[in-house]
Amino acid sequence: MELHQFFLFLAIILIAARLLSETAARFGIPPVIGELVAGLLIGPSLLGWVSPDTTMKLLAEIGIILLLFEVGMDTDLSRLARSGAKPYVVALVGFALPFGLGYLVSSQVFGMPDLMALFVGGTLTATSIGITVRVLEDLGRRQSDEAQIVIGAAVLDDILGVLALAFLYQLVIGQHASYDVLGEVALYILLFMVLTPMVAKLASLVIERLEQHAATPGLLLTMALAMILLFSWLAHAVGAPEIMGGFAAGLAFSQHFGFRLWMGKRPALEFKPSPKLAHRLEEQVRPLIHTFSPLFFVMVGVSLNLRAVDWSSSHVWLMATLLLLVAFLGKFAAGFCIREPRHNQIAVGMSMVPRGEVGLIFAQLGYSQGVFDGETYAALLIVIALTTMAPPLLLKWFYRSAGG
Amino acid sequence: MELHQFFLFLAIILIAARLLSETAARFGIPPVIGELVAGLLIGPSLLGWVSPDTTMKLLAEIGIILLLFEVGMDTDLSRLARSGAKPYVVALVGFALPFGLGYLVSSQVFGMPDLMALFVGGTLTATSIGITVRVLEDLGRRQSDEAQIVIGAAVLDDILGVLALAFLYQLVIGQHASYDVLGEVALYILLFMVLTPMVAKLASLVIERLEQHAATPGLLLTMALAMILLFSWLAHAVGAPEIMGGFAAGLAFSQHFGFRLWMGKRPALEFKPSPKLAHRLEEQVRPLIHTFSPLFFVMVGVSLNLRAVDWSSSHVWLMATLLLLVAFLGKFAAGFCIREPRHNQIAVGMSMVPRGEVGLIFAQLGYSQGVFDGETYAALLIVIALTTMAPPLLLKWFYRSAGG
Repeated sequence: MELHQFFLFLAIILIAARLLSETAARFGIPPVIGELVAGLLIGPSLLGWVSPDTTMKLLAEIGIILLLFEVGMDTDLSRLARSGAKPYVVALVGFALPFGLGYLVSSQVFGMPDLMALFVGGTLTATSIGITVRVLEDLGRRQSDEAQIVIGAAVLDDILGVLALAFLYQLVIGQHASYDVLGEVALYILLFMVLTPMVAKLASLVIERLEQHAATPGLLLTMALAMILLFSWLAHAVGAPEIMGGFAAGLAFSQHFGFRLWMGKRPALEFKPSPKLAHRLEEQVRPLIHTFSPLFFVMVGVSLNLRAVDWSSSHVWLMATLLLLVAFLGKFAAGFCIREPRHNQIAVGMSMVPRGEVGLIFAQLGYSQGVFDGETYAALLIVIALTTMAPPLLLKWFYRSAGG
Repeated sequence: MELHQFFLFLAIILIAARLLSETAARFGIPPVIGELVAGLLIGPSLLGWVSPDTTMKLLAEIGIILLLFEVGMDTDLSRLARSGAKPYVVALVGFALPFGLGYLVSSQVFGMPDLMALFVGGTLTATSIGITVRVLEDLGRRQSDEAQIVIGAAVLDDILGVLALAFLYQLVIGQHASYDVLGEVALYILLFMVLTPMVAKLASLVIERLEQHAATPGLLLTMALAMILLFSWLAHAVGAPEIMGGFAAGLAFSQHFGFRLWMGKRPALEFKPSPKLAHRLEEQVRPLIHTFSPLFFVMVGVSLNLRAVDWSSSHVWLMATLLLLVAFLGKFAAGFCIREPRHNQIAVGMSMVPRGEVGLIFAQLGYSQGVFDGETYAALLIVIALTTMAPPLLLKWFYRSAGG
């Protein structure tokens, strides 16, 4: 891409995102919907001004890891721990139900071959943590109890989604899918999740010390950013989703996070939380988040090419309707598998519904590898669009009518 | 480029930039040298970890337009106007001397064909405003009288450089070079320079108004950013360097900039400066500048592939030495063509010497189009490296010994 074109596209994305999210907010609609619609509007679905170009997608990904970094910073692990097994239950059920039902509907009702049906199931599994978090934020509920469960579940869900993708990809490229490899990857991810926040905490202390003696301004921000990027790279290296790196780095900088190392019976080293550092960093990261996160949501809309859908095909509509039911109910049901007040069950279930970019990655991979035909791809695009757009509205309406 | 690779490269660049600029600062060397050396270190010249990839270059360009935006915001046009014709004289002499002498040396001493000799001249003309500004900043002299002259001259110089590049490019691709086209472009650029700050000022007032009623956070920053990007695109569209757009947008947001529209004899409309808005925006833009501007300086170092130089060729050394003299003296002499105290003449002349990325663009275009042979390209790389690296050190030493 040429430089001036890059500047123009970036400007169009920022302006469209702002115009539509502001308009949405005025009408009482969650702003994230405005940003997604902005993407549909300027992308190939409608005007075709901006295409899902590689550079823009890379920038968009900075937006999502920064968002997850912020989520990590706001996460109180002890509070998360108090929700116990609930996030695991929500993640597992919300993974297994759409996957299993998606597979069954595809193979039994539509007579798809096994691999194709498995891929449809995979496309329906993964919750878009970015959209979920943003919706809760827009509704002012990110610090609520149910949000803790949802965020924990969405992180786990993303890991399951990545494992499923790796597994199915092995099948697609004709390798014998090996469970050993899968187990190994799962182990690596587990290790990553346990160790990274601690390593990141040590790094954050080094950065804090360096900053006190820095001769040039901006050390805290750029080094924290480098750390986020490095951990995201590391996450990918062990087979986990990149956003996990952002989340882990965020945890380390969180004002709540500290830990002790024990030697024998007494603590040998104690790493305390640094609320002041956390506050200062949050202030400096915010402008970056304001700049990059709209790119992410707009690019989800841009990537969702609704022109690829043959709107006149009744087969597409039938498939879309059934799979939408599976996608919706599969996640929604997960909320009811935990012991919580009815209000929270509904909120959790609804929050897990958005598929967004993760579903798109599955669908696009399946289409580009020739696993999906055009009609199945089109039906999945409709499902992804509706599961992404509807929950923010439903949640808003739910919270208002429930007085929550 | 793959996502995880992108993250890794970005992290390496940020860390290397910070490590080396901090180290430089400790040794009393201007930090920008550290960032340039970081680029040489991790780029193809030495370790080869990061290549001059398109995406990184695009991000680097965000760094330079934001830097020029900041320069624009700090620019007091009335103060600039008080320096009168001086920036014009410095720019013209500093353009004509290296161009003319570079051409003469190339054709007379080294017997180059005309087009090649012209291209060598062109490579030696353009001052890197980014590096110049950054050096003055590092030395704490950006608000000085001589810096006003230098910034004005560097902006004009960049325009002359772009005109020369457009002219020579016409010759290279075999078109008859037309002076009409050149005049037309010059006229457009003039119009751009006069009109844009006013249009940008109007836009800034709209943004200010919108922000007061915004329902979502971050409006000021993202809309200002969109404006910077749009004006940079517009600058390119009229044939001016992109950075002019950043500068013009910066002027509009500057706490000094306001204007009146006259209808007949009395002012019909008055647009006052908004110091509060300027202050708030500057606060929010700074994290972006801290993030992006190191990318720019590091990428200059990365793009400067010193492996392409055959260090054993005495011909290369001879050419490099003579052209270095031309490049240095041509700009240095420009400082002495204005009526200023000797101290300022030296500071102005020295500040105009860095060639950096603008010289690189010329050299790379000449090389890729087959105008330059390998030896000439190598000699020019040496000249660019030394004119970029030496002035920050010389200026620092000069200011210290002159007690300025």
